[in-house]
Order: sequence, then structure tokens, then C-alpha cells
Amino acid sequence: MKTLLKNAKILSMKDDQIKEGHIVITDNRISEIGPNVDINASYDKIIDCEGNLLMPGFKDAHTHSAMTFLRSKADDSALHDWLFKEIFPREDNLYKGSVYELGKVALLEYLTSGITGVIDQYFFPEEFERACKEYGFRCVNLIMFDKTARPMSDCYKLLECNKEKDGLVRAVIGMHSEYTGTEEMFKATDELLNTTKLPFYTHLSETAQEVDDCLSRRGIRPMKFFDDLHFFDRGGAIFHGVYLDDNDINIIKKRNVIVVSNPASNMKLASGVAEIKKLLSKGVTVALGTDGPASNNALDMFREMYLVTGLQKLILKDPVSIPAFEVLKMATVNGAKAMNLSDGDTLEVGKLADIIMIDLSRPSMQPINNIINNLVYAGEKDVIKMTMINGKVLYYDREFFVGEDIKELYKRVQKMTDYLSVIKK
Amino acid sequence: MKTLLKNAKILSMKDDQIKEGHIVITDNRISEIGPNVDINASYDKIIDCEGNLLMPGFKDAHTHSAMTFLRSKADDSALHDWLFKEIFPREDNLYKGSVYELGKVALLEYLTSGITGVIDQYFFPEEFERACKEYGFRCVNLIMFDKTARPMSDCYKLLECNKEKDGLVRAVIGMHSEYTGTEEMFKATDELLNTTKLPFYTHLSETAQEVDDCLSRRGIRPMKFFDDLHFFDRGGAIFHGVYLDDNDINIIKKRNVIVVSNPASNMKLASGVAEIKKLLSKGVTVALGTDGPASNNALDMFREMYLVTGLQKLILKDPVSIPAFEVLKMATVNGAKAMNLSDGDTLEVGKLADIIMIDLSRPSMQPINNIINNLVYAGEKDVIKMTMINGKVLYYDREFFVGEDIKELYKRVQKMTDYLSVIKK
Repeated sequence: MKTLLKNAKILSMKDDQIKEGHIVITDNRISEIGPNVDINASYDKIIDCEGNLLMPGFKDAHTHSAMTFLRSKADDSALHDWLFKEIFPREDNLYKGSVYELGKVALLEYLTSGITGVIDQYFFPEEFERACKEYGFRCVNLIMFDKTARPMSDCYKLLECNKEKDGLVRAVIGMHSEYTGTEEMFKATDELLNTTKLPFYTHLSETAQEVDDCLSRRGIRPMKFFDDLHFFDRGGAIFHGVYLDDNDINIIKKRNVIVVSNPASNMKLASGVAEIKKLLSKGVTVALGTDGPASNNALDMFREMYLVTGLQKLILKDPVSIPAFEVLKMATVNGAKAMNLSDGDTLEVGKLADIIMIDLSRPSMQPINNIINNLVYAGEKDVIKMTMINGKVLYYDREFFVGEDIKELYKRVQKMTDYLSVIKK
Repeated sequence: MKTLLKNAKILSMKDDQIKEGHIVITDNRISEIGPNVDINASYDKIIDCEGNLLMPGFKDAHTHSAMTFLRSKADDSALHDWLFKEIFPREDNLYKGSVYELGKVALLEYLTSGITGVIDQYFFPEEFERACKEYGFRCVNLIMFDKTARPMSDCYKLLECNKEKDGLVRAVIGMHSEYTGTEEMFKATDELLNTTKLPFYTHLSETAQEVDDCLSRRGIRPMKFFDDLHFFDRGGAIFHGVYLDDNDINIIKKRNVIVVSNPASNMKLASGVAEIKKLLSKGVTVALGTDGPASNNALDMFREMYLVTGLQKLILKDPVSIPAFEVLKMATVNGAKAMNLSDGDTLEVGKLADIIMIDLSRPSMQPINNIINNLVYAGEKDVIKMTMINGKVLYYDREFFVGEDIKELYKRVQKMTDYLSVIKK
């Protein structure tokens, strides 16, 4: 299968240069790129980009996709009440098949925002894996010991996707957090990490309270706690990282851990603002995540990009903080790094064809003074014309090509949501 | 001309109730609304809303539309350099016809964001008036003494639009700010206010520096300065209002002045966060504005809505701050108040047909737990299905109906932008 994307502007993200050219995709990878592609050769599919921009898809490096059922369910409430009275009791209602359907609504939204890959952390990862494979969406699932008390054999089974060549779904080892961990879970995670040699992913230092509690409980901060357990010996990522001290940052550097920032969620839940400028200045790799739809409530990389730079400017009282290209790198190249997707970060020959097209004819993209700045400071879902994953067009001109009757999906999900929303005493 | 919008959910904004029903528009006003409308009667035009949401259009109560030519031109630079080295020298290049064309690009973007009316403040307001009338867009223009040294007779001429019955464009009296004002300008503005009995609009207390400078220059704060001049005796609005003390707020209350907040611009330019929760608790009416595309860089009411509540939650460390319906009121009803548009605030019989349709089938709006929260916390331009102003559909399914060849407009504007961008020594 050979696809030609012709007459485009191309931002490869190898650098900040935008060049006119074409891209040829053979099966799921880029086979030719540049101005000299033979656009009159024979192709199975030709898309005329009409001068619009092609760039690597966004990577949402921290999300809980199936939480769509809790979107807008309990906003404007205090954090503790929100978690313990609104979120957790409803999550107790979740059953296996629900994650499959609820996750699909999130997948559709990712496509509308040009997101071509996510790191997902939720119950029943096998069900989200099923949804991703069915739609053709790329995902890294966190395999965790969770409260549904998954036996170790199940965990190992869920990691088998890593053996598939060019598989869309991969798996790494995760935990929810230090504060929800039990001795049994730490032990199981240790075994999983040692057996598989995979990196480790967890929520960490999201709130000041979390760090304080860990200090009173253990006398050390969460980052040191996990490092002492050697969980980060093969790298990985922490989600949020709002409250990190210099020692935490030293560990992060030493272990090549990536910080996945979630500025919208941290703002809306009043958790704080991560010190992104400081982290970058210390050479830490920062990626971006939306967090789940219950806390954000959108799954929109444009929102995260705008906020990650905007909030640094505001908090540091310095409008120069975190220039636009740095932000785009977080949302693409660094996200790919967090996903261990070394062949999915830039547009180059041999790389995966996870490509989005930006509609430069939308008014927010006009006039063209600086496309990169336009994307970061004026962009929104409205400018996404195409989302391609693994060489397949899954979204074009607001239509989804995922083999699903969307209206019927919504009906099933609404029914499921109404059922799951009832809190059992 | 009779138009039927049938099979809708309707959020009138009189309260937070959403009801099933239909709307009939006769010419430019709502003539029937509710579940009992005869949908089989004879209409000139019928739009089936298919269960989507109808609500009043958003009002962008502070913008500088024609600044599209400076969008993304000089982001990530320090405020003083940005203004004096990047913005002002290029604005010196502006000529009359340019504001007409540059303003149109902004009008298109407003339509994509469901914005049906703006308060605009810029050079050559007669040119923006021309663009609005041509497209059918609603606007309140600030008539100001500006550096192009407009004679008083011109100002009076520009105010004549107020005599038109049901005119789309109206005018009020404004000044840029205390800090750019001269004695001559204050005198002229005083005369205009006294002759016309119109309210007064100005930038005020946007930065801490501005307030400090006014204090050193005059010994009083900007709000007191203008109040001593009696400029706010007939109400009006201040733009930004980031740094207001209790005495400022007392004046604002006493004079029925509206505070137009611009959270995105204030964040991106590192100006600060207006104390919205405090203002609301004191009974001040707060509306929302995007500010111009050079500082924001989008003209998107969804961005402002998300930020106005998100930033309060963050700064006050309180996720309960400013619930979603309060935010929607700012963006609609309070914006209409700032525009003196008492017949354009809600959806009721006799009110102006400035109506938008929200596409509830977009994934970010699914599932439906709470439509109002969905709009404020998960909404974005992508969900705007229709924008109707004065009974006319100007935007539907991403197409513009404004009698313009959009591609040709972009070409002219790009040429103009390239010309205006050259800074003359």
C-alpha cells in the first residue's frame, strides 16, 4: 500500500524549519520525503494537501481514556470530595466491557486533536488495548497491580503485546502512586520490573499534600522512595511532577526519567504549576499529557500546549518563558520518547507514518507570520484536517474512519454512563 | 423572512435550565420559542437541529480585531520590547483600507468560535464598521481621539450609527488608557461624553506597572483619575482590571462599571490574574474578552471561559471557584450588558436572533452528564455548528456565508501583512 501526500508544507520536527514537499508512505512507514518525490508515479492513494502543513502527530503522554464517563460529572468541587465522593465510588462500578466502549469516545476525541498516540493508565488495560487495535490507534498501556487484584500471570499476559513486530499497542510497568501503594503492590511491581527489564511509570508529586504525606509516612519524598526501590533504574516517566525539589530533579536526571506535565488538570484541580522552565534548564525531558477527561475535561493537546507556556509566563512573570518551538517538541518528540517510540518522533524516511495535517486556511491560522507560533498560541482542534496513524487516515475533514457507527456508540456509552453514575451505598 | 430552528435543546440563559423545543425567527428577532411551536407551519427556511443545543451567541467584550496582521509576529518577547519595538512601529504603517480587510479575518474567526458580537477598539473604526456591516456582524465600536488626530467632527460622524434602528454597529466613547492620554485627549473625551451622554470604555489597571506609574505621576490610581473626571458617570466598562484595590471596586460598583476580563492575554503577557472571584462576590458584573490576536493569539471564547475559572481555581487554590454557569453568563449575558445590548442577552420572544448551535455529537461533548460543564470545561471551536447573527446564518458546518471569497481575502491580507510588517526606521 503506497500513499502519497502531495503539495504540503512539512515540519519534520527534526528542527524548526518548514519546507515545501511531499511524503510517500509505504504501508505504515515513511518511504520518501521532500521536494523531489515523483508525484506522477503510481500510488494506491493520493491526498492533495493544497499547501497545508504536515507534522508528526501529538503524543498525549498521560491520560486515563475510559474516564469519559466521568467527564463533567463533578466539576467545581473540592479535591478530596471530588476523588472520594464522586470519582472512586463510580469507578467501583466499572466492569470489563465498559472500558472498551468508554475508551473509544476518548479515541475519537484524540483524533480530533491530532493526537496519534497516548500513554494510558486505567483499569482493564486489555479492554483499552482492544479498542485501540480495532480503531488502529497507537497506545502504551501501563500494566499495574490494581484494586481489581489482577494475578501476576495476567500482568505477564498483558505484556505479551510487546512481542508483536510493529504492534500498535505496547505495555510498560506502572503503579498509580506511592500513596495508593501497598507492600504487596510494591513487591509485585518490583518483580515485574526485574523480570521484564521495562521502564516504570507513576503519578508523582502532583500535590503538595501528597509530598507532605509521604514525608510524614516514610521520612522521604516520593521520588526518593521509588528510587530507593530501584524502580526507575531503567528510566520511565513521572506524571504531574508539580512539587519537585533539587534532589528529586537530580534523581530524575540520573535515571533519565521523563516528566509528563498536565497543566490543564493541575490548574483545574488547583494542584499548582509544575516548574517547567527550571526542569528544562536542568536538561530534563518534559512531555505533555491531558490527564483524564474527569479532571481536564478535554483531551486536547492544543490546550496543554497553550497552558504549559502560558502558565510559566504568568507564574515567572516573564513572557519570554518557554518559546513556541520548545512547546511543540514537548507535544511531539518528547512525548514519543516517553512512549519509547524512537521511530515515531519525527517525519523522516523509515519513521512511522503518524502524521497530522493542519488546515492553514482556518481563520485562526491566518495570516501566516509564523506557523509554529500560530500552532501553539492560536491553534485548536478546529485546525486539524487529518489524523493518520500507522499509515492509515483515521480522521479527515471532521469524519472518522475507524469502522464504527459513531451515533450508535454514543447511545451505548450514554446508557453505560447513566448506569455507572449511580453510587451504590 | 421566517426561519424555523427545530428539534433543539435550548439554553436560553435566563436560567441554567435546558429544555427541548424549537425557535422561530421573524426577520432578525425571535418570534416564538418552546416545545409548542408549530413546526409544520410555513417557513422560508427550516434548519433541523437534530437535538443539538441552541444558546445565545458569545460576546467578546474587548478586542482589537484588525490586529490579525500582528498575530504570532512577536511572541515570547518581553512586554516593553514587544509593545515598543514590535507592535507600535508596525501599527504606524496602518492605513485606512487595511483595517477593513484585516478586521474581516478576525470576523471569520469570531464566527468559528460562536462569537456574535464584539466591543472593538482600534484605529479607523469606520473601516471595521464597514466590514461588520458587509458581513452582517454585530459590533460596538469605541470612538476615540487617537494618534491619527481625528477631528471632533469625525468623532461625531462615527457616532451617527447609533441613530439607525436595529443597526448592527453601534458606537460608544473610549480612550486607550490613562497612560497614553494627553490633556487634549482628556478634554476632547470629556466633551464627547457630555454631548452624547454615552458610557465610557478604556483599558485600566492591566499591569502593576501601569498603576504604579499613575500613582507616581498623579498621586492617584487610574480608576480614581477617570472617576474624578466624571468619565464613568454614565457607566461603561474597563478592560483588564487586573490590579484593582477596594477603593477602585467601590467606584466600579457606584458607577455601574463592567469589568471585562481577558485571562488569556493577561497570562501570555505575564500581566497577572484579575481577582474575578472577589469582584463577583462584591456584585460587580464581569464580562469576557479575547483582547487582540497579537497578544492572545486566538479569538476564542472557549479559551477565555476555561481560563477565567481555571486561573481562579489555581491562584486561590480552590477548585470550587467560579462554577461553570457563572462563566457562561460572563460570556453571554454580561457581555451583552457591556455592549448595551439589552435585547441580545438571552433567547426569548422579542430578543435579537444572535444564536449559536453547539454540535453535541462531537466527542468532547460526549457522554452527556452536564452540558453546561461540558461547554465550559471541554468545549472548543470544534463544537460550533452554526453561528447566526441578526437572524442570518453566517457560519454553518465550517462554511462561511458572508459573501466573500475567503481564499482571495487571505491572499490580499497576506500581502498587506507582509507590507505592514516592515519596520521603517
